[in-house]
Amino acid sequence: MKFRHELAQQLRVDSIRAADAAGSGHPTSSMSAADLMAALLDGHLRLDFDQPEDPRNDHLVFSKGHASPLLYSCFKAAGAIDDAELLTFREFGSRLEGHPTPALPWVDVATGSLGQGLPVGVGLALTAAKLDTLGNRVWVLCGDSEMAEGSIWEAFEHAAHYRLDNIVALVDVNRLGQTGETMHGWDLKAYSDRARAIGWHTVEVDDGHDPERIEAALNEAEATRGRPTAVVARTRKGKGVSEVEDLPGKHGKPLQDPTAAIEELGGTRELRVKVNPPETVGDPRTFATAYEPPPVFEVGDAAATRKAYGQGLRALGSRRGEVVALDGEVSNSTHSEQFREAHPQRYFEMYIAEQQMLATTVGMQARGWIPFASTFAAFLSRAYDFIRMAAVSRAALNLMGSHAGVAIGEDGPSQMALEDLAAMRAVHGSTVLYPCDANQTVGLLEPMADREGICYLRASRGATPVIYGPDEDFPIGGAKTVRQGEHVTLVAAGVTLHEALDAAERLADEGIRARVVDLYSIKPIDIETLRLAAEETDGLVTVEDHWPEGGLGDAVLAALAEAGASVPVTKLAVTEMPGSGKPAELLAQAGIDSAAITRAARELVPSSGTR
Amino acid sequence: MKFRHELAQQLRVDSIRAADAAGSGHPTSSMSAADLMAALLDGHLRLDFDQPEDPRNDHLVFSKGHASPLLYSCFKAAGAIDDAELLTFREFGSRLEGHPTPALPWVDVATGSLGQGLPVGVGLALTAAKLDTLGNRVWVLCGDSEMAEGSIWEAFEHAAHYRLDNIVALVDVNRLGQTGETMHGWDLKAYSDRARAIGWHTVEVDDGHDPERIEAALNEAEATRGRPTAVVARTRKGKGVSEVEDLPGKHGKPLQDPTAAIEELGGTRELRVKVNPPETVGDPRTFATAYEPPPVFEVGDAAATRKAYGQGLRALGSRRGEVVALDGEVSNSTHSEQFREAHPQRYFEMYIAEQQMLATTVGMQARGWIPFASTFAAFLSRAYDFIRMAAVSRAALNLMGSHAGVAIGEDGPSQMALEDLAAMRAVHGSTVLYPCDANQTVGLLEPMADREGICYLRASRGATPVIYGPDEDFPIGGAKTVRQGEHVTLVAAGVTLHEALDAAERLADEGIRARVVDLYSIKPIDIETLRLAAEETDGLVTVEDHWPEGGLGDAVLAALAEAGASVPVTKLAVTEMPGSGKPAELLAQAGIDSAAITRAARELVPSSGTR
Repeated sequence: MKFRHELAQQLRVDSIRAADAAGSGHPTSSMSAADLMAALLDGHLRLDFDQPEDPRNDHLVFSKGHASPLLYSCFKAAGAIDDAELLTFREFGSRLEGHPTPALPWVDVATGSLGQGLPVGVGLALTAAKLDTLGNRVWVLCGDSEMAEGSIWEAFEHAAHYRLDNIVALVDVNRLGQTGETMHGWDLKAYSDRARAIGWHTVEVDDGHDPERIEAALNEAEATRGRPTAVVARTRKGKGVSEVEDLPGKHGKPLQDPTAAIEELGGTRELRVKVNPPETVGDPRTFATAYEPPPVFEVGDAAATRKAYGQGLRALGSRRGEVVALDGEVSNSTHSEQFREAHPQRYFEMYIAEQQMLATTVGMQARGWIPFASTFAAFLSRAYDFIRMAAVSRAALNLMGSHAGVAIGEDGPSQMALEDLAAMRAVHGSTVLYPCDANQTVGLLEPMADREGICYLRASRGATPVIYGPDEDFPIGGAKTVRQGEHVTLVAAGVTLHEALDAAERLADEGIRARVVDLYSIKPIDIETLRLAAEETDGLVTVEDHWPEGGLGDAVLAALAEAGASVPVTKLAVTEMPGSGKPAELLAQAGIDSAAITRAARELVPSSGTR
Repeated sequence: MKFRHELAQQLRVDSIRAADAAGSGHPTSSMSAADLMAALLDGHLRLDFDQPEDPRNDHLVFSKGHASPLLYSCFKAAGAIDDAELLTFREFGSRLEGHPTPALPWVDVATGSLGQGLPVGVGLALTAAKLDTLGNRVWVLCGDSEMAEGSIWEAFEHAAHYRLDNIVALVDVNRLGQTGETMHGWDLKAYSDRARAIGWHTVEVDDGHDPERIEAALNEAEATRGRPTAVVARTRKGKGVSEVEDLPGKHGKPLQDPTAAIEELGGTRELRVKVNPPETVGDPRTFATAYEPPPVFEVGDAAATRKAYGQGLRALGSRRGEVVALDGEVSNSTHSEQFREAHPQRYFEMYIAEQQMLATTVGMQARGWIPFASTFAAFLSRAYDFIRMAAVSRAALNLMGSHAGVAIGEDGPSQMALEDLAAMRAVHGSTVLYPCDANQTVGLLEPMADREGICYLRASRGATPVIYGPDEDFPIGGAKTVRQGEHVTLVAAGVTLHEALDAAERLADEGIRARVVDLYSIKPIDIETLRLAAEETDGLVTVEDHWPEGGLGDAVLAALAEAGASVPVTKLAVTEMPGSGKPAELLAQAGIDSAAITRAARELVPSSGTR
């Protein structure tokens, strides 16, 4: 225990040194948790730092990502980085960023948006327990301030529901948030009562700086079966240094007198802690595969793209054992129930908890699984911060949002995604797809599975005509010119593609030959097809079941600007708040149906009246 | 109690009739809660249906918005709507939308995205208790499925923290979600344990169809002081009709045999319930005002726009008693602490619970207060679904997001908002502002306060030069041409405006006269200024500290397309995931600093080398 105390002091000293070198950072938030981490490193965590990709490693997640100086000091103490690198903290080009990211091989996922590390930890634990089945553990260091985030509730609920006894939350109750005392101060019982009510085992540690007490708590956590454990530890922010200890106004800044602080902590040390490697043997579980052909839809029939998603995903899951599916309790609407029925061991019900659903996908992909998560597209907005952070994590995951746009009809605007294309385009490295028919939907699934980054597929509620044969190829980044014409180009996707095709027929009756481009890949976008359209026709009409901002139309304009193409573009989109009604009524009211497209196209063609 | 039973049966019958007329909807989810609502209407709810704007009215929020047939049946039973209107449910143009919206005067806020009604109810209760102080009450009908949403935790926490004894959550535990049983089934204790651990009073009602038991529970809720009450009632989905009662697969669809169902329920009735009017007297509290001039910053000095926000909001709060401020526990970063110190009764700490922060603003504005809520712009993404739904609620509220973009520097990407402009532009009826200096920031606050819809102001972390005098006017929808030039136009806002001004200086040295447009109002956008720039200069460079998708550059392209203007546009934006570093290093790396702007501008000017 003497060693543990010395190790903790070293972690404090190094946290102070790192923040001092950087001129910014969160040393006091690091110092409160130093004893917890010293105990964890010395005898509990099982992680081979030389083999960060070993699937049998425990996972260590700093949900309080701003305590990064502590994390990096741990890495140094474990011999994973050297002191010189520690002092590059927050420098341009350093792996040691202000908040942890997977730029470091021992960091599975980025943190720094509070309340996300625990949900992702639950995702990792679920993966370990139900997919990999290697007996490894997930340790999550939580701050007390972040317990106010609702995503913590979702994580608590799911960990208890799935009886995950391989996750331990270490809650660093240092009482002080950024601006003042937290809602619950040092009331450990407030936290443990909540966790216990949800089904967690809890251990309160009245002195979170006492190595003996911490050791007992960690042993109790490891011995607990059938439920997750929360160790709720009373600590002091800035512990050990009188300049900052338990004082307000000391959050997120280096110490004023680091030399005195380090002296007060007993000076620098060069301790090394031998972190235990994994003790389990064996390889992660794999699931048997069998060839199942993708579903085929007959040209001329009608089918909802959401239904094609479900059938296609089931078949993909048969062929690819690493594919898993998750849903937010609407699997009969998204048709992910097809996957669940065929592959129950690889389906995870996330109930109505979209943040946890995203967090789980992030955890799963960190271990090499290929998750597909689905819900109404409107409700993916609930998890937007998780999607944003997944991009920082360089995560590869797949999202399907169904029931997009006014075309859903009677359910009304609360259920209509009208901002999803904009929101998902504005995610770094994302892919945004919007198929118009069932075969196209199926054809996009395997490319999604094999793609880096966050892939989003927008699906429609109603049945749409099948216009593509089952053997057609739909490369991501492509577009299909589904009708040739040289007077005007109609650019559409999803439900509006069919409106555009209908408009092209109407226009043909007037002698206007409209080209129709199916922009099923909105990001990346097929610049060349659009450039040709700009060059070869008199104007473009873009039409989307989405607000005017940031969606298909803006994507087309950006592509044309990049191509240096100059052509009149009329953008049709939903401009007024819709209500309930039949899909056709709402498409007409929004001015995105075939009649509206016809009008807009007519106006773009010079002297079309004389044709 | 006989009347209550009959009334409940009528509510069931009318729910069935409405869904049958619509051909869609959620009758079974309505039927489970009919007895709860009958009791509420008959003696507990205090609401003058003839005076829906009366501030003394209780509020009734259907957090389970899909039970809209029940809500509308209640309105009919109360005499607020007639039977003919009831049967317009879900028709195009009807006020009776698939999910409730404020198109109906007795609906304060839109629901339908589960887990939002309770948080907004907490916002209404906080408004009633701390601002209006009229003694009225908020009744929220919750579904059991939606208790899985983390936003419910945030609502529970805040209601308990603020000791709101004027809110009652009626939890309709009908066991069945959309696809199957909920996580907790009929385990009432699961819900009440959670609520009680957080500090709520709870009442379990083992038979949520027994009028006597419900009456006792509501009386207990009304008598409870110092804490909110949750009535957790065991009910049966589709109660009273054998075709659907407690059966899976009956969610969200009309009954197959409504005639038999209505007969089973005892036929149609024409009962009217006299809902009590408010019993309190008096007017809502107002806060004294005093003239405080807006803060003034000296041209040539440097100040952070976030700091100007705090100072400006404090002054606005002095002049306008209806202005309130909220923050997500970062008030020393957003400088909303300035408001808190001056107007403590009108400042509300939302801790790190952004969803609840948004929900509270929605509740406050429903009662006529003018909320300004602030946090890091990146973390507003946590509440994106609430912002989306606030637009459906036709809410007028103001958001300030600080620490935007790579310009924040060392904290790294988790703290950098790089998608906020896209996300906020894609909110219906929104206003998106991005000031570049302190006086401009101050000048935008009062126009925000007076504006309809959701206003978003993006603020910067670092100090930027003050370039505008304090008397300059900044109309929403305007732009400032801060430097004249006829060769090329640089369009920027916020931190990049200063980079653009620097670039213009560099370009001037080369003989290139660059016009610089400050696009502080990104939505609505000043089309005319951009059209003139397109007409009068050889090209535009847009530059933004944001991902390329959906932000300032795309807004400019959309405006130019709308104006029919044709001009080469080079869009500069952040294209690679940033790390930590000094602001200048990160701006340079992203290619959005003055050097990058200079290069891009040079390429747009024909034969610029010969000038």
